[in-house]
Amino acid sequence: MFGAVIHAPGDVRYEERPDPTIVEPTDAIVRTVAACVCGSDLWRYRGIAPVAKPTPIGHELCGVVETVGDAVTTVKPGDFVVGGFNPSDNVCPVCRKGATANCLHGAHYDGAQAERIRVPWADGTLLAIPGTPDADLIPSILALSDVMCTGWHAAVSAQVGPGKSVAVVGDGAVGLCAVLASVQLGAHTVIAMSRHDDRQRVAREFGATHIVADRDEAGAEAVHALTDGIGADCVLECVGTESARLQAVACVRPGGDIGLVGVPHGDLPVNDLFWHNVGIKGGPAHVRTYLPHLLDLVLSRTINPGLVFDLELPLSEVAEAYAAMDERRAIKSLLRP
Amino acid sequence: MFGAVIHAPGDVRYEERPDPTIVEPTDAIVRTVAACVCGSDLWRYRGIAPVAKPTPIGHELCGVVETVGDAVTTVKPGDFVVGGFNPSDNVCPVCRKGATANCLHGAHYDGAQAERIRVPWADGTLLAIPGTPDADLIPSILALSDVMCTGWHAAVSAQVGPGKSVAVVGDGAVGLCAVLASVQLGAHTVIAMSRHDDRQRVAREFGATHIVADRDEAGAEAVHALTDGIGADCVLECVGTESARLQAVACVRPGGDIGLVGVPHGDLPVNDLFWHNVGIKGGPAHVRTYLPHLLDLVLSRTINPGLVFDLELPLSEVAEAYAAMDERRAIKSLLRP
Repeated sequence: MFGAVIHAPGDVRYEERPDPTIVEPTDAIVRTVAACVCGSDLWRYRGIAPVAKPTPIGHELCGVVETVGDAVTTVKPGDFVVGGFNPSDNVCPVCRKGATANCLHGAHYDGAQAERIRVPWADGTLLAIPGTPDADLIPSILALSDVMCTGWHAAVSAQVGPGKSVAVVGDGAVGLCAVLASVQLGAHTVIAMSRHDDRQRVAREFGATHIVADRDEAGAEAVHALTDGIGADCVLECVGTESARLQAVACVRPGGDIGLVGVPHGDLPVNDLFWHNVGIKGGPAHVRTYLPHLLDLVLSRTINPGLVFDLELPLSEVAEAYAAMDERRAIKSLLRP
Repeated sequence: MFGAVIHAPGDVRYEERPDPTIVEPTDAIVRTVAACVCGSDLWRYRGIAPVAKPTPIGHELCGVVETVGDAVTTVKPGDFVVGGFNPSDNVCPVCRKGATANCLHGAHYDGAQAERIRVPWADGTLLAIPGTPDADLIPSILALSDVMCTGWHAAVSAQVGPGKSVAVVGDGAVGLCAVLASVQLGAHTVIAMSRHDDRQRVAREFGATHIVADRDEAGAEAVHALTDGIGADCVLECVGTESARLQAVACVRPGGDIGLVGVPHGDLPVNDLFWHNVGIKGGPAHVRTYLPHLLDLVLSRTINPGLVFDLELPLSEVAEAYAAMDERRAIKSLLRP
């Protein structure tokens, strides 16, 4: 089969790879219907994270089950499935607490930007969709494998709820999904911080009540002006840079909460957070925990996170999918084998 | 009048001070019925925090209102009152969110280990108790001015609730009150980490289900053994040292929450928290927010946080009150003028 392999920063190739096989009896092999490129894939593409050797890449997928191991009971060949970027057994003591991203037996994909993919812990990871989903729902279903659940995780981690004010730092696919999540969770004021027309448009479509185009001090002042002068109850940091972290701290009210889903680079001003009683929580999203509810919302057409995909390419053009995101010509690229 | 003044590390004196007077129309003057020494007062007593010049000290009190400013409407001369260590107006936008510790107009006491004390923002800070409380309730009422609300704040910050497992790091008065708070908030398992018989006894009296006397790695292992091998849902860090912080991180489960009320000294392992999805929140307690509910619990004899006082002295012996706590001969000292 063919799939994407990153060889070095800026160098992603579509090349022949061995067909995946069942290794553990809990595995499934899924034929990819749609895959995509993640903002976190760009860390290696941009040389910020190392690429030690040519490595299959990608961790988001939906598709059709081809084969299952002997121990798999909840999905079967022919099922249309979606799975999270962080396979989990969904039965260990940590998973039973809902923290499936931290499954005691957590596993990884061997590159999901490929025609076929081995899914470890198929029962714990995959969710089967009744029948065949309408074609126009595929992007939204695919978005559940990472970005929508990650935006949701930011909101849940920051205790977003009815009547609260929310500011979202970052207008990538995750930030936009965090806007959608906040609206769904009942937030009263949802401020998207974005300087790009196309992303502002998606944010509004997702229900943002305000757009703040300023950054740094001016951005924080604009958020304060929309929140009784004190800052937002909840700030969702969906970037992972130190400046985004500080932007979040500057935008949150005393006693408020920061939800953190950008991979952390840089330190936290601990004393500042303490004296302002600001909470901070986040990490990799508990996809499997959120998946059933969010899949219902997608299938009932209540939410449409697939809007974050503004570029669609054949899987064979994966190199261009990376370049477009790297150069900010695309918010997020969808790939079809 | 007479009151306590700290002159230098280890040097607290009972000496004559000017009588307090109404400065702002929102002030009240309270005649002290009981005051006490706080673990945080020991930072200066031990030379860890600086003492720039002789300074009146103390921030916990209950007593009887003697005089009120023209703008005060909710308490009147003769009322028995309790007030938090952090005066707040209780009406600013931050207070209206419940974050009264971070009141936009927050103020401080000019030393509450004294015969009389000026209370800023009397309406926002003080709560009057109907009639005269039974004498045996005075210690528990006094405990509401800081330690009980601070223990409660640790528990609330860590999202303690029904069915959760809690580990409390620190067996000082705040840690013990955090045990009591966790039990009240419905925690299923409440582990007090303590090596001292007298404190273990109070922890059990407060409803701790388990005592762990070990520290460091052995302490974390003991907590894991009591929590399905994964760590506690909530860890309440009631000390403020770096070792206590690391103990908390070692005891919390993936996806869990750390409540922080010890004044932070040292850094946080941010990356570690992120990858384990551990939340961290805390700071100075929102006393005025918690006070009405907790006062009800004290007056109905549902909780008895006054048990943390194991030494009672005349206010004139305040120097011994400090020495006893510094040398760990007492958990917490109560002082009566």
